[in-house]
Amino acid sequence: MRLTQFSDYALRMLMYAAAQPQRLITIEETAQVFGISRNHLMKVANLLTQTGYLRAVRGRSGGLILARRPGDIRLGALLKLTEPDFALVECFGDSATCSIIPTCRLRGRLRGALVAFLAHMDASTLEDLLLSPRVFAPRAASVERNGPRRGKSKVSAAKPRVRHRQPA
Amino acid sequence: MRLTQFSDYALRMLMYAAAQPQRLITIEETAQVFGISRNHLMKVANLLTQTGYLRAVRGRSGGLILARRPGDIRLGALLKLTEPDFALVECFGDSATCSIIPTCRLRGRLRGALVAFLAHMDASTLEDLLLSPRVFAPRAASVERNGPRRGKSKVSAAKPRVRHRQPA
Repeated sequence: MRLTQFSDYALRMLMYAAAQPQRLITIEETAQVFGISRNHLMKVANLLTQTGYLRAVRGRSGGLILARRPGDIRLGALLKLTEPDFALVECFGDSATCSIIPTCRLRGRLRGALVAFLAHMDASTLEDLLLSPRVFAPRAASVERNGPRRGKSKVSAAKPRVRHRQPA
Repeated sequence: MRLTQFSDYALRMLMYAAAQPQRLITIEETAQVFGISRNHLMKVANLLTQTGYLRAVRGRSGGLILARRPGDIRLGALLKLTEPDFALVECFGDSATCSIIPTCRLRGRLRGALVAFLAHMDASTLEDLLLSPRVFAPRAASVERNGPRRGKSKVSAAKPRVRHRQPA
């Protein structure tokens, strides 16, 4: 049982943004800090911007900044947005073919377990994950030395990922 | 967030076996009842046999039968056996590279949510999922008409799947 890399990266990006609320961060720098793919992070930033978790400031010295207070970002709600689905087993999906679906009791058990999982995550907010900017410093410093990549951020212009749900 | 197909099939196979405790079931027939791959089910049956959930009877009229009482098979414990891992995010795995691991608080939150998920599943046993054999009847009847495939069951001879944990 795993979360998608997309959710993992979304959590990291929000933690990074939350650690430095006074300045704009960039996708490039976030990718370098965590040593992860810039392209994947671009998609993550698109969704987080379009759904009001991050605010994008355009232009040469633009970047991203947290658009909500960390205490208002519930981790369960975030996962509901970033996970493509919670189809734990085949019968949770739209194209289920299992022959015992009408009478099966497994689905109810799994659904209950999923509710317990998300309720536990919803008991925490991004504020509970807050770290000092120094934690990110070793790699961030090297980013600063080499300078961020130039060019306009495409964050706020891109289309939403259809496979992810919009927040309620 | 999804469970593996392997776990899904293991749950189905045990539910099918539990529904008919008086007779041997076969991999072939189980595959037909659920309309799923016989080869995948063979691997599932191997693990369930080697870990004492099913008992294999060899020979032409051999098959599989539940080796424990349904009330003794906890669903959380079963998932711990059938899931290759519960590496919700990268840092749960052995080859984690995330730069903030030493101070990150996310892992603790996710671990707590996972514990809540498995505790919910462990509150149920296979007995809670018991169904009448009639539920499986429509496809099972067609299996009976056409007859099961001949040949020796390879269940008890095969090697265990290394990627799955052995039960405690």
